[in-house]
Amino acid sequence: MTNAIPWMVGGCAIIGLVAAALFAWRVMKADPGDEEMQEISRGVQEGAMAFLSREYRWVGVFVVVLAIIIFFTLDKGYMVAMAYVAGSICSALAGLIGLTIATRANCRTAQAAKSGVGPALTVAFQSGAVMGLTVAGLGLLGLTVCYLIFEVWLGLYNAPEMILGFSLGASSIALFARVGGGIFTKAADVGADLVGKVEEGIPEDDPRNPAVIADNVGDNVGDVAGMGADLYESYVAAIIAPIAIASAGVVYRAVGSKAMLLPLALAGVGIICSIIGTLLVRTKEGSHLHQALSRGTYGTALMVTVAGFFLTWYLMGWQRIDIFYALLVGIAAGMGIGAISEYYTSDAYSPVKKIAKASETGAATTIIKGLATGMMSTLLPIIFVAIATGIAYWRGEAAIPGGGGIYAIGLTAIGMLATTGMVVSVDAYGPVADNAGGIAEMAKLDPEVREVTDSLDAVGNTTAAVAKGFAIGSAALAALALFSAYIKATGLGAQISLVDYRVIIGLFLGAMYPFFFSGLTMNAVGRAASSMIEEVRRQFRDIPGLREGKEGVKPNYAKCVDISTRTALREMVIPGLLTVLSPLLMGLWDTRALAGLLAGALVSGFVMAIFMANAGGAWDNAKKYIERGNLGGKGTPVHAAAVVGDTVGDPLKDTCGPSMNILIKVMTIVALVFVPLFL
Amino acid sequence: MTNAIPWMVGGCAIIGLVAAALFAWRVMKADPGDEEMQEISRGVQEGAMAFLSREYRWVGVFVVVLAIIIFFTLDKGYMVAMAYVAGSICSALAGLIGLTIATRANCRTAQAAKSGVGPALTVAFQSGAVMGLTVAGLGLLGLTVCYLIFEVWLGLYNAPEMILGFSLGASSIALFARVGGGIFTKAADVGADLVGKVEEGIPEDDPRNPAVIADNVGDNVGDVAGMGADLYESYVAAIIAPIAIASAGVVYRAVGSKAMLLPLALAGVGIICSIIGTLLVRTKEGSHLHQALSRGTYGTALMVTVAGFFLTWYLMGWQRIDIFYALLVGIAAGMGIGAISEYYTSDAYSPVKKIAKASETGAATTIIKGLATGMMSTLLPIIFVAIATGIAYWRGEAAIPGGGGIYAIGLTAIGMLATTGMVVSVDAYGPVADNAGGIAEMAKLDPEVREVTDSLDAVGNTTAAVAKGFAIGSAALAALALFSAYIKATGLGAQISLVDYRVIIGLFLGAMYPFFFSGLTMNAVGRAASSMIEEVRRQFRDIPGLREGKEGVKPNYAKCVDISTRTALREMVIPGLLTVLSPLLMGLWDTRALAGLLAGALVSGFVMAIFMANAGGAWDNAKKYIERGNLGGKGTPVHAAAVVGDTVGDPLKDTCGPSMNILIKVMTIVALVFVPLFL
Repeated sequence: MTNAIPWMVGGCAIIGLVAAALFAWRVMKADPGDEEMQEISRGVQEGAMAFLSREYRWVGVFVVVLAIIIFFTLDKGYMVAMAYVAGSICSALAGLIGLTIATRANCRTAQAAKSGVGPALTVAFQSGAVMGLTVAGLGLLGLTVCYLIFEVWLGLYNAPEMILGFSLGASSIALFARVGGGIFTKAADVGADLVGKVEEGIPEDDPRNPAVIADNVGDNVGDVAGMGADLYESYVAAIIAPIAIASAGVVYRAVGSKAMLLPLALAGVGIICSIIGTLLVRTKEGSHLHQALSRGTYGTALMVTVAGFFLTWYLMGWQRIDIFYALLVGIAAGMGIGAISEYYTSDAYSPVKKIAKASETGAATTIIKGLATGMMSTLLPIIFVAIATGIAYWRGEAAIPGGGGIYAIGLTAIGMLATTGMVVSVDAYGPVADNAGGIAEMAKLDPEVREVTDSLDAVGNTTAAVAKGFAIGSAALAALALFSAYIKATGLGAQISLVDYRVIIGLFLGAMYPFFFSGLTMNAVGRAASSMIEEVRRQFRDIPGLREGKEGVKPNYAKCVDISTRTALREMVIPGLLTVLSPLLMGLWDTRALAGLLAGALVSGFVMAIFMANAGGAWDNAKKYIERGNLGGKGTPVHAAAVVGDTVGDPLKDTCGPSMNILIKVMTIVALVFVPLFL
Repeated sequence: MTNAIPWMVGGCAIIGLVAAALFAWRVMKADPGDEEMQEISRGVQEGAMAFLSREYRWVGVFVVVLAIIIFFTLDKGYMVAMAYVAGSICSALAGLIGLTIATRANCRTAQAAKSGVGPALTVAFQSGAVMGLTVAGLGLLGLTVCYLIFEVWLGLYNAPEMILGFSLGASSIALFARVGGGIFTKAADVGADLVGKVEEGIPEDDPRNPAVIADNVGDNVGDVAGMGADLYESYVAAIIAPIAIASAGVVYRAVGSKAMLLPLALAGVGIICSIIGTLLVRTKEGSHLHQALSRGTYGTALMVTVAGFFLTWYLMGWQRIDIFYALLVGIAAGMGIGAISEYYTSDAYSPVKKIAKASETGAATTIIKGLATGMMSTLLPIIFVAIATGIAYWRGEAAIPGGGGIYAIGLTAIGMLATTGMVVSVDAYGPVADNAGGIAEMAKLDPEVREVTDSLDAVGNTTAAVAKGFAIGSAALAALALFSAYIKATGLGAQISLVDYRVIIGLFLGAMYPFFFSGLTMNAVGRAASSMIEEVRRQFRDIPGLREGKEGVKPNYAKCVDISTRTALREMVIPGLLTVLSPLLMGLWDTRALAGLLAGALVSGFVMAIFMANAGGAWDNAKKYIERGNLGGKGTPVHAAAVVGDTVGDPLKDTCGPSMNILIKVMTIVALVFVPLFL
């Protein structure tokens, strides 16, 4: 029976992909609206593809170089390199599919919004579900195929080492998608706002603004492709890390390959639960959108929990049912971190209101209050992860003494990430709704349409905050799982004690790196935004009649997209290379120092990620809170102060913060894959 | 001969105190100026004493409670408690003496400024030297007496455990002086600026402003007493940590008590070098002030280096001369971190100029650029400390295999801190010059006098940045030394491996704590500033004729000092208690988790301290750069944007950042003192 499990898991993955295809078909079947709407949508589609194709060319070079290094330096390097390339291709493909549908769903959502909230939500959410189920489906299918080839078919003793290549592939794509995409989206956003809104005084999403398409492309590139690649990476890492831990040692001797099948099986069941979850997201006209999305998210989590209980019972036996606690605390931590993110970034609670209030005394107090809020918000998420880690280890050791603890820590991440299909669906729907609003504006649709898309977008922002918290928490747990696998693979054990000066040196450098990396990417956004601003100014200057909105005069949208693309990818080279090279160089010096580096970067990067995401989200919503007429509303000095906060928060929450997730995972997976080289 | 060393060290300490007394006498002998100047100075003196006496009452309660806990929970608790109380009293006394002289030197400096830069520098610097030599002298004298009693006279096998109490006493004072003083100084500063300059439109240091005295008191309380207590704590910890490490084990077997005498002897020689260094600080009219101070600082460092070489040779023998490298890299790291601080915060270099340039596009870009600069600035200081740690360990093991490495890491801090007397002198002179400027303004002296004090103050700002870098670096090295002592005391060794989930949990919580603490103190500054603002507004409203500056109408300065004092001390209770309680609670759970907590807080707190100090310093000087007429100068929107940056930077660089130094040391010393309780 257990022999059939990998095949069944593969089946679940394929069902997920079929469901994604069905959702895609239904999205494409929807009315795309009139010619003007379709044309705007095409602009976004072409822009997104222009970014993606250029990004993938860069990624291609990167992947080939790294594959060659793997090929020549590692034992059975050709197998690892194959898995690596496969992992990259699957992630790239997921990004391509998700982005293709998302950029086609925008005009269809706008069109559906003419008939009300319900239909609009359906189209937007279905397009998100395409991304969500493709990410989970392709990730799991690829891993299962690797597992079948290396473990079942070839029966390699070091099969997990080969499969780790797949995870490294996921990380390579995520690095480019998150960091490059993050720089792109903010450069376009700042460029569009600063010249359009501030200098030229034209409204947001005005078609005269040359950067308006780039801005819309940025939403898709950042929140759909970037978030998708991030969670794809976490998802794959969360599955492979416990497999690597369970492939030998005490756990293997206790339960055999069943311990390796548990994460796979759980991910498979998670896909089915996610499909059911997506079907729960429905709303009638006027009913609560937020409830609909929450029903889907929490419903999926509940189903995964119940299924996880029975799967653990079945695979581990009743005497080891305590392993289930690892899954449970993983899910709980994920939901808890999401809830904390919501508390600190939603204007329903006091932190955001206090930041808005602080805007009454100017921009400086807005910034100070936001920084303080972001810093304070790190307390509970870290405590949640600490408690989850503690409980997982404790119950894991109770179930399998002498090795079950580490295995259980490895499992917490998959407990959280089994719901990936659903979480990505909810998150990817946000930018589609946002884009639909832009199209409604540019195509001058009825204001009521814009109201509908705005209500979708508003809910999307809250759910995005929750998803962001989830992404951070899962990245930390996945990195922790990979770190545990690294320690196991190196066999360092007691050698990586805090007594050892190399560990301490590594810790210092690791804790510093997220700060340095954030500084680099923050400056990168600044430089990329400057070139964008220059181009937008140039177009307003050189294209006669553009400013006045003369009939038939159009800005060169593609040029703006192109500039944003070029600068974003160029700017990510240094931080990207440093992130890959630092663990390699450290590992070539000493594996203990590398362990310190990874641990330092993990804890400091995790804290920084929460700080930046929550400070940025809180500033954003404080501004929106004022814009809705509180404390004086738009146009007042209070609003101006809040805008400063929002602008400062933008690169923090959309570029630097999300990059932390990637940073901690990429460093750890690079270390893990190259362990044979270091030893 | 070695028996005489402690006595000789005590002699050096006494010489330092005598020199301090001589400097104090020369300051007091100087002409205090006319009656009006003296009256203003008296206001500052009374305010400073009002703060100090209230602070010491709170500290008194805290010290008594902790002494009782020590008394009842530790083995030979009465001895540790005695050392603890002695350490507190010495530090409190140093603060009292330094503050008394500094607040009497301000009018004398203003008076001397009438005859030119040279005489003014002499008075101001001599008052700084009183603080510097008192800190070093009392710290070393107290430690030497403890050493003579517990080690030489009673011959206790665990003498270092007793002496650690002295270090805990230093930490208790530092906690109140730095955190409470940091909140005080910023609340007064913001209150004075916001109501006075912005709302009422009266110039800085105008006698009508009720908060003007509190602002001047704040400079003394923060930069003289706060910095002094901080470096006193580092200094004492840096001496006691290697003693604790060398008191048993491999190092003791190799060289006996000589290894314990080396740090004491070095500190003793350091005091003599510092005295010579202070004599090097002289300037003729028109010559370079900056050079005069640099000559003193670098001259002292050079003398300490040479003396350290011969001391190591004498005590350790030529075959173990490699121990000297620990001192050398400590001094080099200190100077290096100071130089990096100067690079990132002086307007002579590009980072500050770029922030000023970013102000042209508004407050948001100013903030983003400043944050990015602060984050990037963490790279080199951390690398310096990492290299210093690595070299120290490497050469230490070469000298004494199997234990010399940890001992050498413990010694790096004293290499750096032997120059404490000089560094504190240079730092404490800044606020005196600043205050003198205030007095010149308030007493309506000749504008030329103000120019002289301004030039002193400007140089003081740069040297303060260097001293701040030095304080951070020395705090990190001292905490690292204490951490090494903790590990040795617990005997955990290989048990505190990163494999252990408790260590990982501790790391996560430790890395988060500096963020949470910073958030707390940032909010505390906000609340304290609000009550100050309300009081200043009330006085302007309720005191007739105050706004118009009617003859004989005076604001109630003392009331403002009182409010700032009360709120500052009240606001520091929670962060202060958490800092002391968190290692206690963690240690009662598990000493491995505590090791993780300390390591996490150390690395993350160190990085945060650099980030906040340099970002804040850079914003400050970017504003001043613009105020000197660059990029449009005062009153332009560019200047307004830079002011926002400066205001945001203020709590970062003067409250939260310096508190990090205390946080990492207090947590570690609490852990170390209570090791016997945990085991």
